Amino acid sequence: MWRQRVFSRVACNILPPNFHRLAFAPMSTQTSPQMLVAVVGVGLVGSEFINQLLSIPVESSPFRLISLSSSSRSVFFEPAKAVTSAQDWKAILSQSNEKPNYETLTEKLSSLRAPSTKVAIIDNTSSSEIAALYPSWLKAGINVITPNKKAYSGDLGLYEAIVSASKESGARFLNESTVGAGLPVISTLKELVATGDKVKKIEGVFSGTMSYIFNEFSTGSPDGPSFSSVVSVAREKGYTEPHPADDLNGFDVARKLTILSRTIGSSSLPSLSSFQSVQTASLIPPALEGIPTGDEFLKKLPEFDTEFDKMRKEASQEGKVLRFVGVVDGIKGDVKAGLEKYPTSHPFATSLGGSDNIIMFHTERYSPRPLIIQGAGAGAAVTAMGVLGDLLKLV
Amino acid sequence: MWRQRVFSRVACNILPPNFHRLAFAPMSTQTSPQMLVAVVGVGLVGSEFINQLLSIPVESSPFRLISLSSSSRSVFFEPAKAVTSAQDWKAILSQSNEKPNYETLTEKLSSLRAPSTKVAIIDNTSSSEIAALYPSWLKAGINVITPNKKAYSGDLGLYEAIVSASKESGARFLNESTVGAGLPVISTLKELVATGDKVKKIEGVFSGTMSYIFNEFSTGSPDGPSFSSVVSVAREKGYTEPHPADDLNGFDVARKLTILSRTIGSSSLPSLSSFQSVQTASLIPPALEGIPTGDEFLKKLPEFDTEFDKMRKEASQEGKVLRFVGVVDGIKGDVKAGLEKYPTSHPFATSLGGSDNIIMFHTERYSPRPLIIQGAGAGAAVTAMGVLGDLLKLV
Repeated sequence: MWRQRVFSRVACNILPPNFHRLAFAPMSTQTSPQMLVAVVGVGLVGSEFINQLLSIPVESSPFRLISLSSSSRSVFFEPAKAVTSAQDWKAILSQSNEKPNYETLTEKLSSLRAPSTKVAIIDNTSSSEIAALYPSWLKAGINVITPNKKAYSGDLGLYEAIVSASKESGARFLNESTVGAGLPVISTLKELVATGDKVKKIEGVFSGTMSYIFNEFSTGSPDGPSFSSVVSVAREKGYTEPHPADDLNGFDVARKLTILSRTIGSSSLPSLSSFQSVQTASLIPPALEGIPTGDEFLKKLPEFDTEFDKMRKEASQEGKVLRFVGVVDGIKGDVKAGLEKYPTSHPFATSLGGSDNIIMFHTERYSPRPLIIQGAGAGAAVTAMGVLGDLLKLV
Repeated sequence: MWRQRVFSRVACNILPPNFHRLAFAPMSTQTSPQMLVAVVGVGLVGSEFINQLLSIPVESSPFRLISLSSSSRSVFFEPAKAVTSAQDWKAILSQSNEKPNYETLTEKLSSLRAPSTKVAIIDNTSSSEIAALYPSWLKAGINVITPNKKAYSGDLGLYEAIVSASKESGARFLNESTVGAGLPVISTLKELVATGDKVKKIEGVFSGTMSYIFNEFSTGSPDGPSFSSVVSVAREKGYTEPHPADDLNGFDVARKLTILSRTIGSSSLPSLSSFQSVQTASLIPPALEGIPTGDEFLKKLPEFDTEFDKMRKEASQEGKVLRFVGVVDGIKGDVKAGLEKYPTSHPFATSLGGSDNIIMFHTERYSPRPLIIQGAGAGAAVTAMGVLGDLLKLV
């Protein structure tokens, strides 16, 4: 304990002062609770998460990184030999010949739980197979934190199994980064609900891709670049999937709405059996459904430019812009995603730009003016931040 | 335990479903940790806080309200006889002849601490005297949650005593509602810092009063209502203090900036000895300093309308509006509050309206486009929500 206090004083002088004031880990004379962390998925987001986690000085960090799993390799460390350096982990993992085995991982983590030691798995994949494991992890008392949308936007049965496993064991399931990455969306929604506010409507631009595309395409002017050229440029800039139809189908927004709707948990909202129950107006022209590659898709998309031009002109004549939005309507009981028109004076037209997300919460307390959150809603750094932020809530 | 599980199942059918999914209190088969709560200050915000707290069904609530103190009366309950009904507490308190005694309260709460029982004092006053007690409360292991700006924006010594008392004992000091009421401002800032993001600049309209006044006064048009008439109407509508100079001096904004600056805790920011170290450009014409009553002040304010008209016209000619903003600049090392000009296309001109607060976080990750939070930043309901939200973080 004396060592902690001495180091804390030394740390205050050497390290950036903000670390010793970190809200999550006041250096106390009591032993700080530990959190043993297992990371599943070490791609873009996973790597960034690990780097952020390991950049917390080990002397003041309540976290110990004890396991890494990619799709083909995995490694496990005794807590005393946890990974502490952001430079080592890739090499260590690449040298391991162990394949990922989640049953073994679950047993090991479960056995390490103690009164002052929590355990957590961070799932940085977007895998449905991994998401299906959450109930067993939670039942074993392992906290689960993830940006993976599959669990809460998939089959109702899986969602309910997660909720009830968490209730049974007390282990937490946190998923801030599933909607808006590091933006405080899910935490704010939970707080509104937990403090007794009534959510009347949530509406927003939940997709960075759709945000960029329509911010470029529809500025209020009756004319502008063709829709197909905007989508083409968006793909070049990395704002869309290699196959733009994967964004234009609106399913990503539908998944996020499913997550939000279930998080509110109100009886006035429909019980969604999965994200496919959301009324989603896909932007893929029916004639272009099922085209196998992005290149072919983009080659044919110009054939539909006149339709999009027409919608843009109509909106402009009404003094409006087109925005692809998601809406959870607690009063009408609707959950839907699609192209809507907004006045050129609306924040979706004026404040929104780049590839930002923007989310408005219309509630009993935030009325008539909503609570608005806006900012980058995608990208490895901000997604990893949301995940680490969730982990910090547990210590 | 069986009783909890049975009730949980019954509760799921009778109560609004969202209560059983409340993120803070998964009904587990383990004994849920308890939080004993003492409320100091039962005015507008205090009353609203108590009502929100007591509207959580007692069967699923981890909170027990065991003490109430007004400026003249106080009452204490054994935990088993905690106040559970929102209708009773006012009568109970008014019948008490006990004066508030914070030493006694501290001892009682401290003695009730246990491995699975935390204690907290909620200070809903705006008293400097009460704020001065926080270090002793924290040292005694009592968590302190408050919308009171005095502690973190006052004397540097008090701020440092609070931080070090919290570090020593592990008891938490949380103050979300000091900036932006229920808007997720301080929690977002703490998360940015804790996850390693670098805060380059925070700028915002932090005062609902100043927001309303300048949204009305300066719309981008070269002309408009006189400044004195806008302030007069603002006072009638309850947007200002009875003496408008208490808002126009900018000190409220300076206090909030001091809190934000200290929360970041970066060595590139000045160490503020108190909110008075913030460069604050008061809007009170020097000749009107020290006028004792709001009425007299408003009678003389028209004499200065031409100066404000001139500033508005100049801004308009530059295609800008006037906004009273606060800025924490981590690059220049400035902390200042005052009237600034913003392009009519800027969110402070387009998105901002009513008496909303708007806060932009410019960070390494949220670059070039900032993270933006906007909404009502004052009012009993949203302020109480921020306080209860903080309390929920501790269980």
